Amino acid sequence: MKVGCLGGGQLGRMLALAGHPLRLRFTFWDNNAEAPAGHLGKLMVGHYNDPAILQRFAKAVEVITFEFENVPVDSAYYLAQRHPLYPPARALEVSQDRLQEKILFRRLGIPTPDFLPIESRNDLTQGLRSMGLPAVLKTRRFGYDGKGQFVLRKRGDSARAWEALGGVPLLLEAFVPFRRELSVLAVRDRKGHHAFYPLVENLHREGILRRSLAPAPGLKPKLQALAERHAVRVLDELNYVGVLAIEFFEFRGKLLANEMAPRVHNSGHWTIEGAETSQFENHMRAVAGLPLGPTAATGHSAMFNLIGELPDTEAILRVPGAHLHIYGKRPGLKRKLGHVTVNFPTLASVQRAMKTLQPLAGL
Amino acid sequence: MKVGCLGGGQLGRMLALAGHPLRLRFTFWDNNAEAPAGHLGKLMVGHYNDPAILQRFAKAVEVITFEFENVPVDSAYYLAQRHPLYPPARALEVSQDRLQEKILFRRLGIPTPDFLPIESRNDLTQGLRSMGLPAVLKTRRFGYDGKGQFVLRKRGDSARAWEALGGVPLLLEAFVPFRRELSVLAVRDRKGHHAFYPLVENLHREGILRRSLAPAPGLKPKLQALAERHAVRVLDELNYVGVLAIEFFEFRGKLLANEMAPRVHNSGHWTIEGAETSQFENHMRAVAGLPLGPTAATGHSAMFNLIGELPDTEAILRVPGAHLHIYGKRPGLKRKLGHVTVNFPTLASVQRAMKTLQPLAGL
Repeated sequence: MKVGCLGGGQLGRMLALAGHPLRLRFTFWDNNAEAPAGHLGKLMVGHYNDPAILQRFAKAVEVITFEFENVPVDSAYYLAQRHPLYPPARALEVSQDRLQEKILFRRLGIPTPDFLPIESRNDLTQGLRSMGLPAVLKTRRFGYDGKGQFVLRKRGDSARAWEALGGVPLLLEAFVPFRRELSVLAVRDRKGHHAFYPLVENLHREGILRRSLAPAPGLKPKLQALAERHAVRVLDELNYVGVLAIEFFEFRGKLLANEMAPRVHNSGHWTIEGAETSQFENHMRAVAGLPLGPTAATGHSAMFNLIGELPDTEAILRVPGAHLHIYGKRPGLKRKLGHVTVNFPTLASVQRAMKTLQPLAGL
Repeated sequence: MKVGCLGGGQLGRMLALAGHPLRLRFTFWDNNAEAPAGHLGKLMVGHYNDPAILQRFAKAVEVITFEFENVPVDSAYYLAQRHPLYPPARALEVSQDRLQEKILFRRLGIPTPDFLPIESRNDLTQGLRSMGLPAVLKTRRFGYDGKGQFVLRKRGDSARAWEALGGVPLLLEAFVPFRRELSVLAVRDRKGHHAFYPLVENLHREGILRRSLAPAPGLKPKLQALAERHAVRVLDELNYVGVLAIEFFEFRGKLLANEMAPRVHNSGHWTIEGAETSQFENHMRAVAGLPLGPTAATGHSAMFNLIGELPDTEAILRVPGAHLHIYGKRPGLKRKLGHVTVNFPTLASVQRAMKTLQPLAGL
């Protein structure tokens, strides 16, 4: 089956590594001629709304997916008329707007932090008055890896926050003093079957995911069940096909939905070694109309991102049980260049390996 | 690092799937323009002794390996003068000739079935007289998957055996009523460190591997230690780098070496899911000068080859825990088109899954 993938970054690359053994072949579309997925399939280079490429891409493939959520929605709807496109364009559309996303969560009964749309300086002043401090001002669109966010801790921050982000549609959110950040990776196939990976505990620094632990240490079945109930509502509402990630704040035993990503997700990279079927394989199985594989964790895993520049990769490979994944991208400030996963039968063994790996991964 | 690989079949394909995350990029050389590894790297098409391709290939790569042992030795020696070539050309040369291979085993103190070189019809008559029946007549070169072999059970078979195989250098071997066939996958890095996977039990039909069980059921540490001692001698003698497979007959508590393959091996495919580091990753680590990863089995695995034509692959994917690997080759008599692996904590669970999988895999 000829799969078209919008975006040719590391996620596309790992989708291809999982998809080739399922007899899938890949055509990637990226605006970067050095997109790292290009080594694992054909690569079309150009803007995601270039009508000529849109037609060429549609002609070259049989089923379409995407690996980043800032694909122009018009392009997605155009392509969806020609081929099955999964996850559905509607999921893409919702996830591109933090306001729509939060409204969807609330409509489906999924708790979120309090939020208010902000269109003007005046909205912000009034919003802060009603919501209180601290609060987080976020752009509604095109935010990722901590970009487009400003934490307001005191009244005087309001002017600086407006200066930094004002002029585009914004969202003001109550700051949640959460216990930890958790994410759920859920997958739905074309027949509507669901599967869920265990909740993952994520550590962010400067808005970028640095480390994931899976299953989240001390994870209670009740919390897992709650996450799955939340995820099912989103999956079924959107008639979703593929992997969906939802990031939560764990706060007073509840899960407050922060955001969702309609794609495979960095907090699911541990599944390559640590789950019976990886998120990448299950996404491709769903997209290709194949049955899902089991999602159970095979032990305890830790995943570290390698950011900015590659560390001494030989030193990493010498750590017993360390699995290295380099994406083949050029180094650059805050760029995700690779990741390392360790997987052991016990959390204690994982923690021992983490002591060696964390400094190597710059943590 | 730019890796050149002689041969672009399924083994090359799986080497590339393991090598890309280690920042390796691949150029394959195959005489078939549809070689399935071509989806995962560049593909140069032509005969393995074409001097123009030899030069182009040498220019395009930094380190060289191969995925089948019938690479012309002259080409290998030529390339080895230009770049590191692993496993060494000498290993290739020895493994291309069953007689040299057996002589090497004997010289290193590794038991083998009795054997005699056969150059003429008269040699065969005399050989059968001294060796007795049953016996196996084999071509010294270019035998694989049961091709180039003739089992003689009675005197009268001699004429037919000669008719089938005579005219090329042959080897007559005593037929060993072995308990089972076992193989060891061993790997040696550039610094001379060794690692070994647990012995695998292999089931052949019509000379083709159909099923592997790993670790071999009932495997005793003593037998594993014996296999490793045998393998170390070959690895060190040849100053070997990469994965080496040796096939043994288990007979009266001893291991009689049958043949070796200087490459990743079909009986090691289970390591993708069933070992901490796969044979493919460890081969690429060794070839690229990286440290080896741990080789322990993570449970019990069974691997089935899919031969001739692909079965109902969706039915296979519905078997919980079944991992499907399709190579992207055209169907054809006795062609290996893919494999399935199951991996569980206990042999009993593996055996349960096998009952469902065996008929699907045509066993």
